[in-house]
Amino acid sequence: MPIDHAALDRVFNPKTVVIIGDKKASGYMWLNANRNFKGNLYSVQIDPNEIPGIEEMGIKNLTSLADVPEPIDYAIVAVPRVVAPRIVAECIRNKVGGATLFTSGFAETGTPEGIEAQEALFTMAREAGMVLIGPNCMGLYNPSLGLSFSTNLEAYEGGNVAFASQSGSHAIAFTQAAPENGIRISRSVSFGNGIVLENADYLEYLAQDPQSKVIGMYVEGLRDGRRFFEILKQTTPKKPVVIWKGGQTEEGQRATSSHTASLAESMSIWNAMVKQTGAILVHNVYEMLDTVKGLLYLPGLVGTGCGLTGGAGGQSVSITDAFAKAGLAVPPLSKESYEKLESFFSLVGASFRNPIDMGSNRTEINAIMDILNADPVIDVVAMQLSVTSQRRRNILQAPLEALLRFKKNSSKPAVAIPYSMTPHLVGKDLKKLETKLHDAGIPTFPTYERAAQAIRNVVDYYQFHSG
Amino acid sequence: MPIDHAALDRVFNPKTVVIIGDKKASGYMWLNANRNFKGNLYSVQIDPNEIPGIEEMGIKNLTSLADVPEPIDYAIVAVPRVVAPRIVAECIRNKVGGATLFTSGFAETGTPEGIEAQEALFTMAREAGMVLIGPNCMGLYNPSLGLSFSTNLEAYEGGNVAFASQSGSHAIAFTQAAPENGIRISRSVSFGNGIVLENADYLEYLAQDPQSKVIGMYVEGLRDGRRFFEILKQTTPKKPVVIWKGGQTEEGQRATSSHTASLAESMSIWNAMVKQTGAILVHNVYEMLDTVKGLLYLPGLVGTGCGLTGGAGGQSVSITDAFAKAGLAVPPLSKESYEKLESFFSLVGASFRNPIDMGSNRTEINAIMDILNADPVIDVVAMQLSVTSQRRRNILQAPLEALLRFKKNSSKPAVAIPYSMTPHLVGKDLKKLETKLHDAGIPTFPTYERAAQAIRNVVDYYQFHSG
Repeated sequence: MPIDHAALDRVFNPKTVVIIGDKKASGYMWLNANRNFKGNLYSVQIDPNEIPGIEEMGIKNLTSLADVPEPIDYAIVAVPRVVAPRIVAECIRNKVGGATLFTSGFAETGTPEGIEAQEALFTMAREAGMVLIGPNCMGLYNPSLGLSFSTNLEAYEGGNVAFASQSGSHAIAFTQAAPENGIRISRSVSFGNGIVLENADYLEYLAQDPQSKVIGMYVEGLRDGRRFFEILKQTTPKKPVVIWKGGQTEEGQRATSSHTASLAESMSIWNAMVKQTGAILVHNVYEMLDTVKGLLYLPGLVGTGCGLTGGAGGQSVSITDAFAKAGLAVPPLSKESYEKLESFFSLVGASFRNPIDMGSNRTEINAIMDILNADPVIDVVAMQLSVTSQRRRNILQAPLEALLRFKKNSSKPAVAIPYSMTPHLVGKDLKKLETKLHDAGIPTFPTYERAAQAIRNVVDYYQFHSG
Repeated sequence: MPIDHAALDRVFNPKTVVIIGDKKASGYMWLNANRNFKGNLYSVQIDPNEIPGIEEMGIKNLTSLADVPEPIDYAIVAVPRVVAPRIVAECIRNKVGGATLFTSGFAETGTPEGIEAQEALFTMAREAGMVLIGPNCMGLYNPSLGLSFSTNLEAYEGGNVAFASQSGSHAIAFTQAAPENGIRISRSVSFGNGIVLENADYLEYLAQDPQSKVIGMYVEGLRDGRRFFEILKQTTPKKPVVIWKGGQTEEGQRATSSHTASLAESMSIWNAMVKQTGAILVHNVYEMLDTVKGLLYLPGLVGTGCGLTGGAGGQSVSITDAFAKAGLAVPPLSKESYEKLESFFSLVGASFRNPIDMGSNRTEINAIMDILNADPVIDVVAMQLSVTSQRRRNILQAPLEALLRFKKNSSKPAVAIPYSMTPHLVGKDLKKLETKLHDAGIPTFPTYERAAQAIRNVVDYYQFHSG
C-alpha cells in the first residue's frame, strides 16, 4: 500500500502516545521504555490489579481509549491475541494516528487460527486506512522524542541513521549498539510480519525523511518485490541503503517463515537487485554496524589504495591478507615515497614496503604519515592500535597522536583498528580510545577483516554512484 | 635439519637461563618477562651503565658467559646485529644448550649485509649443531617453568596446547589470549626467520611432546615443503594440527618477504597439503583460538546436526544462516520430538522447528533441552546467551542453568554463544559467564559465525581421521 508520508510522519513523531495493556508481569516494559517520552504519555488498562503499579510510576491510566483528552498520534498495543482485533477496532474508531501491534501469534505460527486472525486484522486496518505497524513487533524508536521500544536505550538529539527491521531483537541490537559505534539513530522501526505496511513502505518513508542520511534494513521477505526494487533504485542515489537479508540459506528461510511468515526468496535475486540498484548487502549485525559507520565517516571514498601501518611484522602480514582478500589494494608506494623513506628509515626489525612495520622508527611516525599523505597511490590510511592490559599502555600514545594529526592535516580519510587480545579486561580503555577516535572523525573497527569489509562496502557504494 | 628431540627438549625445559644484552631502554623486557622463572636466571651485560639496573632487580649479572657457574640450557640473545655473530660463537664455545636470537636485521631486510650476516650465522650454528632459534624472534614460553617471551603473560601448570609461530606478535597474541579462552598453553615458540630450525623441526618436536595435545602454527614459509608434509601427515592422526598461513594473498606474501624473508607459496598448494594430511587451515588469530578451543572441548565430534536455541525470532534466523553457511546442518527434528513439543509448547511469539525460539516457553526449557538430547538428528546443541548491560540481567539465569544441566546429563556436546551488543560495558559479566561455561566443559564463541566455523573445523578434523 503506497502510504501518505504525512500520516506515517505523524506516527514517527507523536505528541501523544497511549500504551494499551502493559502489565506488571513484564515489568511494565512499555511504560518503562517510554519513561523519558517528551510528549503526553497515557496508559489504558482495565485490569484493576495492574492499575496501581502504573499509577505508582506517575503515569495517568484510563480505562478507555475514548477518555484520552488529546488526539492520539501513536498507540502501542500489548494485549493478548484474542483481544487484539477488538483493540485495533477501537483505535480505528478513536482515530488513532497509528498503532504498533506488539501482540504475536499470527501467520508466523503456521496455524489456521493465526493465519485467519492476521487476515482479519489486515482487512480491518486496510479498509480504515490505518497505519498498523506489525503485528509481532516492537514498533518505533525516536531518540529525540524519548520514544522507545526497549528499556535499554537512551534519548538524544541529532541522529542521522535510520533502521527498519522485521526483527525486534535485531532492531534493538542495532539501535543499542549504534552510539557505542559512533552512530546516532534518527529513527528505528521494528515491524515484524509487516502486513499493512511492509519493507517498501518504510523504505519510501525513510528515503523522504530529511533527518535520515543513511538507511539500514533487516529484511526477511518482500510482499511486493517490484515496488521495493523501484523505490530502492530511486533512493540509493540520494542516500545509501544497507540491507541485511535474513534467510540467506534454505535453513535460514525456514526460520524466517516461523518468525515473520515471510516467503522464501533466492539470494541470487537479492544479489542481482542490490547490484542493479547500488544498494549494499551485508550479512550480519556487525557488518551492518561497520558499513553504516564507514558510510558516515568515509563519505565519497572511491579509491581502494590502502596505506597500512601500526602493526609489528606478523600483524602487518595479517592486515595485508585481510585487506587484499576484501578486494582492496595494498600497493607498493611510489618511487618518491621510497626515496624519502630510505633517507631515514631503519630496516632493522622494520619494513616500509606497505604495509609499514615501523619497528624502531616510531619516533619518525609523523614523517611516515606525511609520506602516505603525499603519495598518490594511497586513498585511505588504516592504523592498528594495540590496547594492552598491563605495563605498556603508554606505547599507544605516539601512534594515536600521529593518527589524529594526520586526520587533521590530510584530505585523505583514516580508519583505526583498536584491539586487544583480552578485550574483557580492557573494555573501558577500548571505549575511551574509540570515543576519542570517533570524535575526531576516525571510524574504528575491531578486526582487520571488519575494517577491510567496511571500506570495501563504502567504496562499492560510491563507485556505483559516481559513475 | 632433523634435530635431536632431547636437545630441543632441554632448551624448551631449561634449568639455567642466561639473558645476554638486556637493557634499560627496553625496560629490561627480557629480565622482566622471566622474573618468575623457576630455575637459575643470570644476566650477561658488559655495559657499566646497564648493570646497576639489573642488580636492582635482584638478578645476578656477569660480564662473561664463561662465568656462569652452571651448564647453560638456554640463552636469550638481545644484542645489536653487528655483535650477534660473536655472541653466538661464544654460546657455542660455552656449550649453551640453545639460544634465541631476538636480534633482527638479517635476510628480512632484503639488503646484502643482512643476507650475508644471516648466512654466516647459519653456517656457524649448523656446523656446531647448535639449537639456534630465530633470528628476528621472541623465542620460548613455557608457563610451567615461568619461562616467558613477554611481560604480559602468566605462569601456570597443566597446559596442553602448543603454539609455534614465525611471528612474535602473533605468538604473544595467541599465548596471551589463550587463558581468556579456556585454553592452557604447554609451550609456545616464536622463531622468526627460522634459519637453522624451521617449521618442520618445531612440528616434529611438538608432535613427540606428550604434554601438547593440540598444535597450532603460524607459518609464513617452508624451507623444506616435502619434509613438512611428511611430518604433518604422521602427526595429524595422533593430534590435531591447526595451521594459520600468513601470506594468503599476493600482497600478503610481499609482506611475509619483508617480515621473515619467506618465499611465496601458493595457497592452492597449502589447501591441497591440508586436505591430504587432515590438518586444519585457519585464516586469522580468532579462528585459531576458536578452532583450538573447539578441538579441546568437542573431542571426537563427527556429526553436523546442530540444535540451535536461546535466541528470539530474528536471532534464530541469523544463527541458522551462519551455521548453514558454514556447512553445518540445522535439521528439522524427528517426528517424536515434534509430538512431544506440541504437547506443551505455545507458538505465540515462539517457534520450535529448529532453531527453537523459546518465547514464552522459557519455563519449559529443561524439557526442550531433553528433547534435543533424545533426538538422533541432533549431534551438538548451541545456545546463545545475551548479556545485557542493565535491567534484565536475571533473564540469563534460567537458560544458563538449563545449558549446564544439559552438559551434565547428556553425552552430546554443547556450545555457548555469550554476547553483548555493548561488550565494552559488560566485560566483567562476559568474562565471569565465559569462565563458568569453560569450567563446565562448554566452549564459548562470541558470534554465530565464529561458533559455526569452529564446529565445522572440528568436525572436518574428526571426520577425516575416523574414516
